Amino acid sequence: MDQSIVIVGDWGGSRLRLWLRQGKSVIHRRDGPGVTALTDSPQKTFLDLVGDWREAQPAYAILCGMVGSRMGWIEAPYAPCPATAAEVAARTVALEAEGLPVRIVPGLSCVNSLGGPDVMRGEETQVFGALSLDAGLRSGRHLLVLPGTHNKWVVVEDGRIVTFLTAPIGETFALLKAHSTLAAGGGSLAEGSALGFAQGLARIAEQGAQRLTHLMFETRARQLLQAMSPADAMGLLSGLLIGADVAAARDWFGPMQAVTVIGDGALATLYVQALAAAGVTASVVDGDAAVLAGLSMITRHQEASS
Amino acid sequence: MDQSIVIVGDWGGSRLRLWLRQGKSVIHRRDGPGVTALTDSPQKTFLDLVGDWREAQPAYAILCGMVGSRMGWIEAPYAPCPATAAEVAARTVALEAEGLPVRIVPGLSCVNSLGGPDVMRGEETQVFGALSLDAGLRSGRHLLVLPGTHNKWVVVEDGRIVTFLTAPIGETFALLKAHSTLAAGGGSLAEGSALGFAQGLARIAEQGAQRLTHLMFETRARQLLQAMSPADAMGLLSGLLIGADVAAARDWFGPMQAVTVIGDGALATLYVQALAAAGVTASVVDGDAAVLAGLSMITRHQEASS
Repeated sequence: MDQSIVIVGDWGGSRLRLWLRQGKSVIHRRDGPGVTALTDSPQKTFLDLVGDWREAQPAYAILCGMVGSRMGWIEAPYAPCPATAAEVAARTVALEAEGLPVRIVPGLSCVNSLGGPDVMRGEETQVFGALSLDAGLRSGRHLLVLPGTHNKWVVVEDGRIVTFLTAPIGETFALLKAHSTLAAGGGSLAEGSALGFAQGLARIAEQGAQRLTHLMFETRARQLLQAMSPADAMGLLSGLLIGADVAAARDWFGPMQAVTVIGDGALATLYVQALAAAGVTASVVDGDAAVLAGLSMITRHQEASS
Repeated sequence: MDQSIVIVGDWGGSRLRLWLRQGKSVIHRRDGPGVTALTDSPQKTFLDLVGDWREAQPAYAILCGMVGSRMGWIEAPYAPCPATAAEVAARTVALEAEGLPVRIVPGLSCVNSLGGPDVMRGEETQVFGALSLDAGLRSGRHLLVLPGTHNKWVVVEDGRIVTFLTAPIGETFALLKAHSTLAAGGGSLAEGSALGFAQGLARIAEQGAQRLTHLMFETRARQLLQAMSPADAMGLLSGLLIGADVAAARDWFGPMQAVTVIGDGALATLYVQALAAAGVTASVVDGDAAVLAGLSMITRHQEASS
């Protein structure tokens, strides 16, 4: 049984998560800044965080996410869809950081279901991880959703990512929350009230996603005229945005009655709730578990081919 | 002929415009800060800007807009729809600033066409002004649109504002422009390229407004994959948002084949273009002319009833 020590990581725009792994076991975890918030070079930031893990003599490090973008450490060109884990593994970009080999996982590009270009970085690894964790996803056609700043809807077929579509739901919500007159106050997409969220889903169900822009101002008008609380207004706004996102994804739901949500905690729960309201069964795969399983799958493919 | 001297003004969230008027003629104009950007009290800000106009011995001042909100000078409670100019005139709130009588025009509230609560402050005056300037709007049922931070769609019937609906198009665009990863760089809703704007309208026409959140990320993906310029991406984003706003207003277009756009310059032109693409004829009333005509109409009603 393979007991080699490696460093695996997900280095996205807003955070870096590193794990020291021996065989299948995680020994340590450390968190650092995302590539949009670096104060040092990527190499120095990485090596400082690795620190004394070097004493365990890791064979190499492998990183997925925005670290492979133009604003990251080194550009790893997008792999085109359809793509398997083996194809992604064959396209990792190698570099060396003070003697430690580092492999950067490329993102994916595709033509999405609306005929537009689309890209992802990091989510491909989580999707491959979900396939690794759930054998039922490895054959046939399945829909997965990865809620977040740039929400991804992903179609897999027989172990391949065939297409995906990005909706900037988390980013839009965060900007409206932080700066708009609609629903002021702190809090994330998942921090509004449950009551407000349910009302937002109901408004989209009644009026249709095409009315999103015509429903958004209700968050402000209800506070002014009906003494709606800020927490309820925030919930209403997140219900409208997530409800509209789910409604727009409806074309996929006919052939694929179940959706796998990859994510953590409250936001994943909101998507499960919104999908249930749209008549779709959802199951959840933990985001961290998916990253770890995905990086393992990619390294297995690399080792098998080397 | 009435040659009395009055000060009229539109004091919104982002700017104050004051005019010194004698009879029907504007003698002077001065600009000041909006009610969300005050460094002094509203009264001091107002009197400082009025300055030497006091020497002309104005009979009173009348102000519309956010000046009558909770964050303004004094709260002028919303008048309910349907509302005529005479009813709005009867509900102005009076105060006095160092001997100068000041009248604050109330905003309007309604239940909008989606069954939600809605509010406006300032736009009611522009709508009454448009009715004053265009006799054809004074009888029958008409649709008007006032593009801006909080875009208003307004239905008038026989001289009454019967209902309206707010879409925070300008605010959403401004936040995405200033802070998002979608279409970075300076510029307003009207400063994207014409090519990008036309592409945005076309994408909404092909895919439907319900796909707005699923189309927005194209602004970023096209820059990454197709070397789309930032100006084109900005135009694309504004075409998507305005196209979705116009498409969602489509229910009104059947019975009302023509729409009156109240506004200025480039943004009004974009709405005319988006309406034309949706098969609707639009005419434009200048925003400043509408404010002046609306304040005149309201003061005439006050003088007639006093």
